Amino acid sequence: MDALRALFDAVRDGRLDPEEAARRAFERVQGDPLENLEFARVDHHRAARQGFPEVIYGQGKLPDHIARISKAIVDRGHSLLVTRTNADAFASVAKVVPDARFHEQARIIERRTEVPRGRGVILVAAAGTSDIPVSEEAAITAEVMGNDVDRLYDVGVAGLHRLLAEHRRVVAARVIIAVAGMEGALASVIGGLVRVPVVAVPTSVRYGASFGGVTALLAMLNSCATGVSVVNIDNGFGAAAIASAINHLD
Amino acid sequence: MDALRALFDAVRDGRLDPEEAARRAFERVQGDPLENLEFARVDHHRAARQGFPEVIYGQGKLPDHIARISKAIVDRGHSLLVTRTNADAFASVAKVVPDARFHEQARIIERRTEVPRGRGVILVAAAGTSDIPVSEEAAITAEVMGNDVDRLYDVGVAGLHRLLAEHRRVVAARVIIAVAGMEGALASVIGGLVRVPVVAVPTSVRYGASFGGVTALLAMLNSCATGVSVVNIDNGFGAAAIASAINHLD
Amino acid sequence: MDALRALFDAVRDGRLDPEEAARRAFERVQGDPLENLEFARVDHHRAARQGFPEVIYGQGKLPDHIARISKAIVDRGHSLLVTRTNADAFASVAKVVPDARFHEQARIIERRTEVPRGRGVILVAAAGTSDIPVSEEAAITAEVMGNDVDRLYDVGVAGLHRLLAEHRRVVAARVIIAVAGMEGALASVIGGLVRVPVVAVPTSVRYGASFGGVTALLAMLNSCATGVSVVNIDNGFGAAAIASAINHLD
Amino acid sequence: MDALRALFDAVRDGRLDPEEAARRAFERVQGDPLENLEFARVDHHRAARQGFPEVIYGQGKLPDHIARISKAIVDRGHSLLVTRTNADAFASVAKVVPDARFHEQARIIERRTEVPRGRGVILVAAAGTSDIPVSEEAAITAEVMGNDVDRLYDVGVAGLHRLLAEHRRVVAARVIIAVAGMEGALASVIGGLVRVPVVAVPTSVRYGASFGGVTALLAMLNSCATGVSVVNIDNGFGAAAIASAINHLD
Amino acid sequence: MDALRALFDAVRDGRLDPEEAARRAFERVQGDPLENLEFARVDHHRAARQGFPEVIYGQGKLPDHIARISKAIVDRGHSLLVTRTNADAFASVAKVVPDARFHEQARIIERRTEVPRGRGVILVAAAGTSDIPVSEEAAITAEVMGNDVDRLYDVGVAGLHRLLAEHRRVVAARVIIAVAGMEGALASVIGGLVRVPVVAVPTSVRYGASFGGVTALLAMLNSCATGVSVVNIDNGFGAAAIASAINHLD
Amino acid sequence: MDALRALFDAVRDGRLDPEEAARRAFERVQGDPLENLEFARVDHHRAARQGFPEVIYGQGKLPDHIARISKAIVDRGHSLLVTRTNADAFASVAKVVPDARFHEQARIIERRTEVPRGRGVILVAAAGTSDIPVSEEAAITAEVMGNDVDRLYDVGVAGLHRLLAEHRRVVAARVIIAVAGMEGALASVIGGLVRVPVVAVPTSVRYGASFGGVTALLAMLNSCATGVSVVNIDNGFGAAAIASAINHLD
Amino acid sequence: MDALRALFDAVRDGRLDPEEAARRAFERVQGDPLENLEFARVDHHRAARQGFPEVIYGQGKLPDHIARISKAIVDRGHSLLVTRTNADAFASVAKVVPDARFHEQARIIERRTEVPRGRGVILVAAAGTSDIPVSEEAAITAEVMGNDVDRLYDVGVAGLHRLLAEHRRVVAARVIIAVAGMEGALASVIGGLVRVPVVAVPTSVRYGASFGGVTALLAMLNSCATGVSVVNIDNGFGAAAIASAINHLD
Amino acid sequence: MDALRALFDAVRDGRLDPEEAARRAFERVQGDPLENLEFARVDHHRAARQGFPEVIYGQGKLPDHIARISKAIVDRGHSLLVTRTNADAFASVAKVVPDARFHEQARIIERRTEVPRGRGVILVAAAGTSDIPVSEEAAITAEVMGNDVDRLYDVGVAGLHRLLAEHRRVVAARVIIAVAGMEGALASVIGGLVRVPVVAVPTSVRYGASFGGVTALLAMLNSCATGVSVVNIDNGFGAAAIASAINHLD
Repeated sequence: MDALRALFDAVRDGRLDPEEAARRAFERVQGDPLENLEFARVDHHRAARQGFPEVIYGQGKLPDHIARISKAIVDRGHSLLVTRTNADAFASVAKVVPDARFHEQARIIERRTEVPRGRGVILVAAAGTSDIPVSEEAAITAEVMGNDVDRLYDVGVAGLHRLLAEHRRVVAARVIIAVAGMEGALASVIGGLVRVPVVAVPTSVRYGASFGGVTALLAMLNSCATGVSVVNIDNGFGAAAIASAINHLD
Repeated sequence: MDALRALFDAVRDGRLDPEEAARRAFERVQGDPLENLEFARVDHHRAARQGFPEVIYGQGKLPDHIARISKAIVDRGHSLLVTRTNADAFASVAKVVPDARFHEQARIIERRTEVPRGRGVILVAAAGTSDIPVSEEAAITAEVMGNDVDRLYDVGVAGLHRLLAEHRRVVAARVIIAVAGMEGALASVIGGLVRVPVVAVPTSVRYGASFGGVTALLAMLNSCATGVSVVNIDNGFGAAAIASAINHLD
Repeated sequence: MDALRALFDAVRDGRLDPEEAARRAFERVQGDPLENLEFARVDHHRAARQGFPEVIYGQGKLPDHIARISKAIVDRGHSLLVTRTNADAFASVAKVVPDARFHEQARIIERRTEVPRGRGVILVAAAGTSDIPVSEEAAITAEVMGNDVDRLYDVGVAGLHRLLAEHRRVVAARVIIAVAGMEGALASVIGGLVRVPVVAVPTSVRYGASFGGVTALLAMLNSCATGVSVVNIDNGFGAAAIASAINHLD
Repeated sequence: MDALRALFDAVRDGRLDPEEAARRAFERVQGDPLENLEFARVDHHRAARQGFPEVIYGQGKLPDHIARISKAIVDRGHSLLVTRTNADAFASVAKVVPDARFHEQARIIERRTEVPRGRGVILVAAAGTSDIPVSEEAAITAEVMGNDVDRLYDVGVAGLHRLLAEHRRVVAARVIIAVAGMEGALASVIGGLVRVPVVAVPTSVRYGASFGGVTALLAMLNSCATGVSVVNIDNGFGAAAIASAINHLD
Repeated sequence: MDALRALFDAVRDGRLDPEEAARRAFERVQGDPLENLEFARVDHHRAARQGFPEVIYGQGKLPDHIARISKAIVDRGHSLLVTRTNADAFASVAKVVPDARFHEQARIIERRTEVPRGRGVILVAAAGTSDIPVSEEAAITAEVMGNDVDRLYDVGVAGLHRLLAEHRRVVAARVIIAVAGMEGALASVIGGLVRVPVVAVPTSVRYGASFGGVTALLAMLNSCATGVSVVNIDNGFGAAAIASAINHLD
Repeated sequence: MDALRALFDAVRDGRLDPEEAARRAFERVQGDPLENLEFARVDHHRAARQGFPEVIYGQGKLPDHIARISKAIVDRGHSLLVTRTNADAFASVAKVVPDARFHEQARIIERRTEVPRGRGVILVAAAGTSDIPVSEEAAITAEVMGNDVDRLYDVGVAGLHRLLAEHRRVVAARVIIAVAGMEGALASVIGGLVRVPVVAVPTSVRYGASFGGVTALLAMLNSCATGVSVVNIDNGFGAAAIASAINHLD
Repeated sequence: MDALRALFDAVRDGRLDPEEAARRAFERVQGDPLENLEFARVDHHRAARQGFPEVIYGQGKLPDHIARISKAIVDRGHSLLVTRTNADAFASVAKVVPDARFHEQARIIERRTEVPRGRGVILVAAAGTSDIPVSEEAAITAEVMGNDVDRLYDVGVAGLHRLLAEHRRVVAARVIIAVAGMEGALASVIGGLVRVPVVAVPTSVRYGASFGGVTALLAMLNSCATGVSVVNIDNGFGAAAIASAINHLD
Repeated sequence: MDALRALFDAVRDGRLDPEEAARRAFERVQGDPLENLEFARVDHHRAARQGFPEVIYGQGKLPDHIARISKAIVDRGHSLLVTRTNADAFASVAKVVPDARFHEQARIIERRTEVPRGRGVILVAAAGTSDIPVSEEAAITAEVMGNDVDRLYDVGVAGLHRLLAEHRRVVAARVIIAVAGMEGALASVIGGLVRVPVVAVPTSVRYGASFGGVTALLAMLNSCATGVSVVNIDNGFGAAAIASAINHLD
């Protein structure tokens, strides 16, 4: 309301034309100006509003489009993060953002800028080797967003000693991302060991009939451990964004 | 934006204090003032915004609460419409809105005021006798909202001649609400006969294993006839609201 | 019944042979003569009965068949509309209907003729860039059917200001088609802003695990806003046909 | 039991050794000897037990295996019927069964022998052009099994007059197979017109989101018409086998 | 068309007024006159059209309504059959149809008249004792419809010898109704033993987690035996109607 | 086959009439004579065939019926086991089987006789206090079937130390029954600790939205630990029967 | 490991017997001693391990059991929190914990002790009046766990202005719990407005056919806004535990 | 605890440094040292803990990785078992493990070493020819794990005599693995014939619409025969591991 008040003051003082003032007030309410690239509205103010600039979801987008949006973001001085992407898109992006990097397993293209650092460590724990791509999507996303990340992979509950052997790393984290497919029990076991928040990511790993991750999703939602919340199947990025938001709280 | 402009003009002309103007502008954007009944925010401006005042969904609400919200609505001179309600609630409402009426089969309490009349007739067609309660919810809602309603019940497709015998009533309607459970084929057959919009309402009638109406819902969504859109299972009220909105278009 | 009466009068007056009269009466009841192309019955009278001639659903049909049906429709002077089609089919159609046009993103082949104009504007609102193909299927279908269309894309609810900034275009429409995948909330938010009918189209956009559009479908069916009805997943054509039927009501 | 009695009589009379008799009795109970082709047990006695020899389900079987089983069946003088097959398999079969025929759309290879004729006509009704492959699977299967078949295609309920125009063919059938996808309403409408049994076949036609035929399946199971039973999605063969069994009843 | 021809001949010959003829022709097309009881359209011509008069589905209907419809049916000299009913309804019916009988386990009220006899025996086979109510619904329905019924209960496949011990009764039937819950395997095993049609009825027996009969339903639809078609869960009536239609074929 | 041989030998030796021999041979094949109690076929030979006499599933059976079947079983000298039963049934049973015992939490009535003892200990592990009724059904069933049972309750994975503290009891068992609702992770964790077979029982415990045990069922089926097989939701009896069969193997 | 080291040091120094040391080391690893109340293992060390003592899930537990567990917890000086409970349980608890309080709508019994305070405010936002019980479960749980809570109820997205009018309260929170049934869009809209973590709670509110909260659950999982994680349906307690864990991070 | 005691004794006797002792005690508790191949933790002690060394699940793993893990396992002298693999992987493995064998149909690579022999025969029964690949996965796994295996294929219940003819092989087994798709009835029928444990494997055979094996899975879980437990769809390996564990019990 302060901004509105300022506009009215300016009008009263004759510094501003009422019509222009109305236009600005309306615009203010409507939201921030958006850069219109014809095929997408790039929302540069998201950095202010949500703590990180717009992320490009690469799947289904043309390499050329990804490259053009990437350039627009980088030109503003923002960090670049493209998820669910591939080598073709990277070839296009690399032409306009030469120092961008491609992480094949994580399917991420990124170029980091200085961003505020998170306060603690985000632990990314993965149950099996098949969960690593989603885990890497989470880990790299978290790194790009300014967090220290500790990776703890292949610690599924069928061999409990593997997890318990790393107990100290588990309890040292400020936030934990637990990535698991199949029966998704890793989230419950970790949830029972710590007092910090655990963000669970079910994966669609195709061991037997896991219904594309639905079993792990349901299991994680029904976790008997407190402190576990869940994101969508294979959504490593989403988990990292939440973990980063938590890790950046003062 | 015109309203905003008027505020700025008033400030420029000294007719309005900037602070008060900012408050009004902010309030305008925020939405209309809401009457706060502690347990519910009654939204009296909905009549302006959506063409009909707030409707009370009765299920799960205490009779006393329903009565108090009813009174608040009637006191403003608005039409009263309580859906999914019962005789207990009506007993409470009748004390504070003496001329309210209760429709047992439709589970509706209503008290009508003058509202703009719809342009044509809304036909409510029901496949079987078990679909009548939902059909009546639709029919009475449509009437309260200012529409002429034609009821055509027990015209399911297993006895096609029953529907074809009333062909002229079908084609005379401006909008049609087709209510059916089981395999929900009535919507497709009617959709094939007319050019006006058909709003389909699947019902949870418990003939055999119809999965609480899901079969009819899916069948209606997959209708091979064009012109058929669908509302939620048993949502006679919603279908009537849509049909009324269509029927009130100039 | 008037037509039947005329036949009987003609027989009584000796103007018509009883056998021929019986044949005509029977035929009349049976429906309009259908052009039989061996692999499909083209229903030319649909224009009269449903307000628009038969539309060709292209998926799974051979290019040659599509071309032959297209020609039959165009030869009658009707508008041509082929949905869910591709460049191969267009190559075949273009040989027999030279001035047909192909819309790649919308997967539509069309050739317009004069049709009655709808009364107002149909707004097609899309939540994300991935919803644009389905939105274009809706928009072009609506245009071919004689409607003015306003496209409002990339206005998903996660960045609410993008939608609110275009509030005036939203309230100016006579019918609104809301296209969204994922959680499908756009329909509810728009439904809460307007009093005109909103036809919601869930899309099968593959962001995370949206179960092929089922989530958006269920969310739209459960919309807390009144005035929202729903068509099948990705059914842009169906939404446009309904919107056009509404927009053509007197 | 007569066969067992005969064995005991033979033993009493000294015509048969008890051990051999026990072996034969055991074998008799165990079932008929089966021709063992290593990768499949061909059951030649099925013709006696079930009225038609073993049918080869082609999907997932190697062309060479199909050819060898085909030859074994033909060598016994039985009719050959291979379903869900393709041109590759036919190439192999044709080498060993030169007068076999291939129906591409129905995906059937067959070679007919004299079989008992059914008593009436089996009508195969299909809702849309996309339902024709499954319908042809049913129709050709029924023909190979000795039935007269009447095909009535493209008579979906959205254009009811198309079905009503052929009312006499519908009521003339002794059994009806109703094939439909989407909302599957054809079975209900036909079921309401006749007193003979209707076997409904849901199809997985991919118009919109029909969940691979589940919607049609559920709709047919919930048919409000009596006399409708249902087989599995796309199971044209199964419907024909049932219809043929009915049509061969004395 | 013959009836139409007769009308035209009568008009030509001056025996019939054109208006009256048109009315009759229209009515003929529209279908048979229906007795309107306000809350239900009783369809007395169904006996002609479908081989058996209208059956009353009792669930959800008031006892008084059931009694009035029952009387209307009996007054016409038709057989009475009320399914899914109870003792309360029977008390009402008994007052107006004194010789009606109530079958508690089958939940049926019936009063038989002379109807055409079916040609063979309908075998009703039930897997477990919990399947008996649905089996009785089927058996009594079949009897009322004029069929000889053989009941073979408690012959589930977990004790295969119980079924095999009655092999001769199984193969003696002209049609078989197989009633089973849980894994529904009875239909497959019987289907493999006979050449006559088998109508399978899944039941919602609550042994463990059978998902209200869905497991048995799916299993029966996926039966590896040919000749098995399926009706809805617990739909003993529907199965009997189909079996009777088959058994009444010449 | 030995029994058949003996019959033939007897016939050859003139000790047996061929007709009587045939009858006996047929009967032998058909299965054992079953005691027919009108409402159920009691299968006394099951003890020989399956290692334990027929168990009475109490749910849905009348107390009087349960009592009569119980008496028939006890009169033969067999162990009595009635599952899913209640105090009413027990009152009836106690009149005819005075020394029967009722376990309220397990919902079991039983009377033990000497049965062969299993070789080792069956451990019944339960995740939470809500899983105890199903666990007790398993434990008591196993005891009645002749097994030593060790109960280890409230050892869910959210507090892993509770399970690990009892590690020695876990590894000492010959078979383990793991009972858990919610995310069902107990089976995986135990499966990873031992080399003996684990039979997992999902429970329908209503903590949050566990979909009646489906989540636990799916999780257990997708267990990342080898050695885990699964029975139906809440099927403590079934798990015990399997565990007992394993424990009785030589 | 420090504790283990201390034991070894004590043994080396002769201060501790090796056997006793081994026992203590084993016990330490096995977990903390648990108070065994026969029907439940109370886990008093959870306060240390997870930041809050064991919470009693009341549903399905006997009042007397709840009272005894409550007393054991209070006797240790811990905060008491019983969820999903009722007046009967409270009557029992009140006898042994006289100063316990019962919140009927939230179904919670609690008695607070000094616990560490969270750093910011937890906002609990609810879409409709029907979501209030779950919201109150969340709000009171959060308060008992030491957090300041701001309640913002009845701000569903169909009347967007109601939420926007409270924008400042939304952005002032450190963590947000968004509670909604039906289409669950509130979480997405709030997620788009803030940069702090949002924990979404789907509710099983029975407006129309929301499938017991599954629609809201799926919608929230598919939220197009980043920063939204989800807990189980109606799990207000779980959401509060997570929000509190976040709010207690340094 | 004995190992811990030994450490303490060693410290007391001065043979071991307390710090080193603490390290070893900690390590012991944490679990066995794991060979870290960067992309997977090979768990060589599993042979001791679970009776068989780690099995490599081949799907989704790179041939090179499979080869390197294979070598590590073989170098330790363990049996090698790679499941869900293919010819490419075998080419890589064969280079480093020259005497490994590839079973194409079973998709298994294996190299056997001496392992303890199971006590009896494991029967692998398959319903149809399409179930053979999964059956072979089970059979070869069981053989590699040291069991005698009897294969009984193509004995589905639709031709019951095929199974009954092999009755003696069925009852001779110590454990039975029943593999079936479609309606999965084989498990129930076999379960009714024997007293030994039956492990049921549903298959995703694509005959008709079996929903990827879900129908067979549900049917097997609902088996009316006792003694049947179930593993995941197509999980031949898992069934064999369980059967082997049972067969190796003393």
